[in-house]
Amino acid sequence: MKPYSSLAPEQQYSELIKEHKKYVRLCSMGLALDMSRGKPDRDQLNLSEEMLGILNSSEQCILESGLDCRNYGLLDGIPAAKKLFADILDLPEENIIVGGNSSLNLMYDAVARALIYGVLPEYEPWMKQGEVKFLCPCPGYDRHFGICQSLGIEMIRVPMTMTGPDMDKVEKLVASDPMIKGIWCVPKYSNPMGVTYSDETVRRLASLETAAPDFRIFWDDAYAVHDLYDEGDKLLNIKVEAEKAGKPDIVYIFTSTSKISFPGSGISCIAASMKNVKYIKSIMTYQTIGCDKLNMLRHVLYFKDADGVRTHMKRHAALLRPKFEAVLEIFEHELGGLGVCEWTKPRGGYFINFDITTGSARRVFELCWDAGVRLTSVGATYPYGNDPHDRNLRIAPSYPPIEELKTAAKVFCTCVKIAALERLTGAPAPAAKD
Amino acid sequence: MKPYSSLAPEQQYSELIKEHKKYVRLCSMGLALDMSRGKPDRDQLNLSEEMLGILNSSEQCILESGLDCRNYGLLDGIPAAKKLFADILDLPEENIIVGGNSSLNLMYDAVARALIYGVLPEYEPWMKQGEVKFLCPCPGYDRHFGICQSLGIEMIRVPMTMTGPDMDKVEKLVASDPMIKGIWCVPKYSNPMGVTYSDETVRRLASLETAAPDFRIFWDDAYAVHDLYDEGDKLLNIKVEAEKAGKPDIVYIFTSTSKISFPGSGISCIAASMKNVKYIKSIMTYQTIGCDKLNMLRHVLYFKDADGVRTHMKRHAALLRPKFEAVLEIFEHELGGLGVCEWTKPRGGYFINFDITTGSARRVFELCWDAGVRLTSVGATYPYGNDPHDRNLRIAPSYPPIEELKTAAKVFCTCVKIAALERLTGAPAPAAKD
Repeated sequence: MKPYSSLAPEQQYSELIKEHKKYVRLCSMGLALDMSRGKPDRDQLNLSEEMLGILNSSEQCILESGLDCRNYGLLDGIPAAKKLFADILDLPEENIIVGGNSSLNLMYDAVARALIYGVLPEYEPWMKQGEVKFLCPCPGYDRHFGICQSLGIEMIRVPMTMTGPDMDKVEKLVASDPMIKGIWCVPKYSNPMGVTYSDETVRRLASLETAAPDFRIFWDDAYAVHDLYDEGDKLLNIKVEAEKAGKPDIVYIFTSTSKISFPGSGISCIAASMKNVKYIKSIMTYQTIGCDKLNMLRHVLYFKDADGVRTHMKRHAALLRPKFEAVLEIFEHELGGLGVCEWTKPRGGYFINFDITTGSARRVFELCWDAGVRLTSVGATYPYGNDPHDRNLRIAPSYPPIEELKTAAKVFCTCVKIAALERLTGAPAPAAKD
Repeated sequence: MKPYSSLAPEQQYSELIKEHKKYVRLCSMGLALDMSRGKPDRDQLNLSEEMLGILNSSEQCILESGLDCRNYGLLDGIPAAKKLFADILDLPEENIIVGGNSSLNLMYDAVARALIYGVLPEYEPWMKQGEVKFLCPCPGYDRHFGICQSLGIEMIRVPMTMTGPDMDKVEKLVASDPMIKGIWCVPKYSNPMGVTYSDETVRRLASLETAAPDFRIFWDDAYAVHDLYDEGDKLLNIKVEAEKAGKPDIVYIFTSTSKISFPGSGISCIAASMKNVKYIKSIMTYQTIGCDKLNMLRHVLYFKDADGVRTHMKRHAALLRPKFEAVLEIFEHELGGLGVCEWTKPRGGYFINFDITTGSARRVFELCWDAGVRLTSVGATYPYGNDPHDRNLRIAPSYPPIEELKTAAKVFCTCVKIAALERLTGAPAPAAKD
């Protein structure tokens, strides 16, 4: 297709009229489609059905060590669940603390602990040191930004690139300001860009020279095994790199089975240096009796080991891949060459990142909303919900059935075209629902 | 038996020699018995075996509303679990937030939230107001005190009586000091005294005139349905009383199924006024995706309703009652009338409270330890682990098999006699393990 910008103004206007006619027809269909959240669909959830009832006798609850998983005990989780996460993340078991169904909760608690207690006994609590700041690579994950906002941490935007956060900017910022205490990272199939950090990025992060001696990288490896294709992206092991750089304590690693088993009933973990782990446990012991060991056991009984998880993830991929490909094909067919937008083609994770170069994200969102297609809130991928260029949209193709998804993607494309043409022509389209 | 104090000194000494001979024999038995923690035993855990596998198909996971319990959503828990807790606690469903497997975690979070955010939007965070203090009725629950200690909250001891905390003291303290922000209460079958607060105590608590406008009662109703006898103690509904007193927001109510289903894998709740609940949820939404809905579903499928819970608790009582009665019988037989100690005869809960009037709790603990009988650490029932009179011991009869428990109780009685006689005679007994 020809770039819109190469069309004569009257051609642009007639395109707008054409797309708008399409849009009015779409609006009349009474659609109710949701591409807003990275939720597995029902077929994906059904993949783990056998896990639901796999633990059904008292004997199964008693470990070889004699420990009864039904009773109190084991603050940091059962050994077999530690091993499962250790093998998924390629880390030693001793560095793992197994959590409950919400890795978000582990992250929130990690930040809150650093604020209240400090990251290690030798450091002052962050909150006693002044106004805490975090680096937030953008676009990024809204719930990370939510933790900072809720806890009163100032967020500093850092641009994301196709190799990870802009490391020149990161290095410069952390070198001079001792109140910059952390950075949020989704290092593999990043939310929403689908970018896997390059080896260089991982090495530069692991060896960051920070003005703050108590700086931490919040490494949310949410999509560690969430490949869409047999050949998945490879992420360098940040724990190994941090040790090489003489900074073993700099990183907290998180992951969960939320998008492996069940989003609401998975298990999660935080992994870190022994020094970090020991200190975290010394505080956790006041905080909780430990997480649900029976659910850890269910996961271990069902997946058996990391290979079991990887096999299972291929089944997820078989369901997800066609959805991603369908959306990308529609985008290419409808929007390719128009010169008004660009999008990522991720090889894993849950999102397609969509940028409208003309800066009309909010308009697209509203047009979609009126047509019955729900997108992630505009700005959600930026701190304080504020996308300074009004450009970024996050597409989540996982949840709707594929036929609905295709419809939603087509509606979306129409809305993108309208928003772009409105911008170019300066003409607002006729109101949507007259 | 004659009171020891009425014996002539040489009689006291010969009693000491006699008990010590017994003790040496006991020490040689190589015992390894544990009366230290309020843990259900294996038979109690087996009572809920059917719950383990009760949820075993995908269809069961989908609620009538269409909500899929396997997926994300429902920050405050599934309606049926709210209803279950509401009926147990005699509260409206709307006042319930369902938590995960650790009510301790809900309590820690409630305190931490008040420190960081304040109890309601109109109040400053506690930590910005100065040094926060809590009232701690003693003897009390060590993990409550642990939360305060961990979060740097100063603990003020208030004596427990047979009707609850000494309310004259409580009222006086809270009236004058605006930095006293909370009080810990286990209002039914209190840990460790087994006391259920009188109606007057509940009413006085509910209508407390506090210098702090943002004061909260932490009402840990851990043993709400944990009666040992058909006729259980009755606890007045503090929410109703607080409303009557015009102080609906003053109380956070907690409970859990830890000692109903499985200690490590139960479900819990926090209940409070709508204003409190709304504010708690507004912060929780940054903190977690919500708790495990499948485990809530398991509980609802298994227990069905509050009557189901009550029926189930009778099965627990049938296992626990003989243990409590066996210990109490041995205490009465061995120690009755000696005039050196007293103990409670609880009608529910998990503990027998034991006070040695002569103030030798630490010595009893050590003697028991050397004989292979583990007790709760001395002082654990007081803030900072410090029992100012070295008098209080907490006996937890639930975990050991009954024959072992009887042995442990006899060892304990021998140790009590030795400690008391040592005090009276001023003569240290011969070293235990020579």
